[in-house]
Amino acid sequence: MNLQTSAETLNLKAERPIGIFDSGIGGLTVVRKIRERLPNERLIYFGDTARVPYGTKSQVTVRRYAAEDTRLLLKYQPKMIVVACNTVSALALDVVEHESGGLPVLGVLKAGANLAVKYSQTKHIGVIGTIATISSNAYPLEISKLDCEAEVYSKACPLFVPLAEEGFISHQATKLIATEYLTELLVKKIDSLVLGCTHYPILKSMLAEVTGKNVVIIDSAEAVAMEVENLLREKSLLNREINQALPKVLVSDLPQKFKTMFELFLGLSLPDVELVEM
Amino acid sequence: MNLQTSAETLNLKAERPIGIFDSGIGGLTVVRKIRERLPNERLIYFGDTARVPYGTKSQVTVRRYAAEDTRLLLKYQPKMIVVACNTVSALALDVVEHESGGLPVLGVLKAGANLAVKYSQTKHIGVIGTIATISSNAYPLEISKLDCEAEVYSKACPLFVPLAEEGFISHQATKLIATEYLTELLVKKIDSLVLGCTHYPILKSMLAEVTGKNVVIIDSAEAVAMEVENLLREKSLLNREINQALPKVLVSDLPQKFKTMFELFLGLSLPDVELVEM
Repeated sequence: MNLQTSAETLNLKAERPIGIFDSGIGGLTVVRKIRERLPNERLIYFGDTARVPYGTKSQVTVRRYAAEDTRLLLKYQPKMIVVACNTVSALALDVVEHESGGLPVLGVLKAGANLAVKYSQTKHIGVIGTIATISSNAYPLEISKLDCEAEVYSKACPLFVPLAEEGFISHQATKLIATEYLTELLVKKIDSLVLGCTHYPILKSMLAEVTGKNVVIIDSAEAVAMEVENLLREKSLLNREINQALPKVLVSDLPQKFKTMFELFLGLSLPDVELVEM
Repeated sequence: MNLQTSAETLNLKAERPIGIFDSGIGGLTVVRKIRERLPNERLIYFGDTARVPYGTKSQVTVRRYAAEDTRLLLKYQPKMIVVACNTVSALALDVVEHESGGLPVLGVLKAGANLAVKYSQTKHIGVIGTIATISSNAYPLEISKLDCEAEVYSKACPLFVPLAEEGFISHQATKLIATEYLTELLVKKIDSLVLGCTHYPILKSMLAEVTGKNVVIIDSAEAVAMEVENLLREKSLLNREINQALPKVLVSDLPQKFKTMFELFLGLSLPDVELVEM
C-alpha cells in the first residue's frame, strides 16, 4: 500500500495524535522516547493492563487482543499507530494494519531489527524477549530479510519483566539470572543485543555490565521513535504547533498503579488515566 | 445458609464432579491433593490461562472473572465448587457463592487460615501471597476471626510465581529473593508460614531452607483438600463408586502448555484439554 496516497485519502492531519499501545506499562519506554524526539506531538496511549502479559499467550489470543486494541485507538482518530508491544509486533502486526484501514503503522520489532543490522559489524546479533516473541522467530526472520548473512541468536528471558516491575533493577539475583540467560548468547560472540521487550530498557545498565563493553545494546523503543520521526517528516505530518499537553492514557485495569508507574517511567505527573473495559 | 438443606433442595448426587478453578496452572496443586485424599471423586478443573494472573488485577476485575469462571463450571453440574485461587478466595468468594446458588463452596484461603491457627503455638503467623491477596488483608481478617490473639505478618512475593513457572526451583537467585522477602517475617519470630498462593508449594523445600526448622509451612492446597473431604463426608456426598477417570480440564488459552504442566505437577498424562473462550 502507498502510504502517501492513503494518508491523503484518509485526510490525515498533522495535529491529530499518535496512537500507541502495549499490553501494559512497558510501552511507556516508547512514549518517553517519542516525547524526547517529538515534544510537539499529541500522544494517546493504551495499556491493556487487565490482560497483561501478552507474551505468555497464544497467537490466536494475541491477534484477537491486537485487533481490539487497535479499534479502541481508532476512536481517537490518530494519524498513525505505533505498536509498542513486541509480542503484537511479532505475531499480529498485519492484524493492526488491517484493522487500521490504511493508517501508517510502525512496530517496535522492525525498528529494532533495522537498528541492529545498522550497528552490527560482526553480523552476530543477539535478541532477547518474551517467550511468545522469541518462539515466533520474528526477529531472525526480519533481520535475515535485511541482511541474509547475519547470524541471529535468540533467548527468551521471561523473568526480566517481573524483576523490572518489582524494582529488582540492580539486585544480585537479577544479575545472576541475567548471567544465566545471556551466557549462551555471549559464547556466540554477539556484538549487538536487541532488547526485544519494552520493559528491558529499565534493566539496561545491569545488562550492559553482564554483556561487557564489546556488545552494543539496541533499545527498540529508541529505534521506533527514530522511525516515527522519519515517517511523519516524510508524510509532512509532523505537528508544528507547540503542544504542552501530557499524553492521554487509557488502561483496562488498575489506573492508580499505572499512574504511579507513569510517574516512575517518565518523571511526569499524569493528571488522569481513563479506565476502559476490554 | 444451611448447606444440608440446600444440598437436598439442589438434589446433589455423590457421583457428580467437584468443580475446581484457578486463574491458571497453580490450582493443579489443589487437584493433586484432592486426588490423593479422594481418588474416587470426579474432578473438573478450569484454568483461566488467557487471563492469568489475577493477582495483579483490581478487585472489580477479579470479581467479574470469578463470576464468569463459576458460571462455566456450573454447566458441568458439580456437587461443590473449590476456589483454588487465593486471589479469588480473598476478593470474590461471595461472588462465587452467589453465582453458584446454594452449592457448597470452599476456598483455599479459609482452609489455610484454619490450619495455621491449628498449628501455631506462638500465635505469630506469617502469610505470603500475590500483591492482590496480601493487599486485600483477607488472611489477617480470617485468622483474627478464628483467634483474636493471633498476630499475622504478611508479605507479597510477586516474583515467586514467575520463578516457579520458569523452573528456577532451587536456583541461587530464587534463594536470594526468598531471603529478601522472608527476612521481615522471620524477625517477627513467626512459627508458621502460610503459602497463600497455589504456586508456592512448588518452592516449598527451598522456602523451608530459608525459614529453618522452627517454622511450620502451611500448604493451603493440602488444607483445602482436607476440608473438601470433611464437607463431603458430612453431607453424605462422597463418591463410593470406583472412579478411574482423569480430571476433566478446561483452559482459556494454551492447552498444549497446560498439558505439559499438568504432567509435571501431577505425574499423569492427560488425554485432552478443552479450550473455552472467556
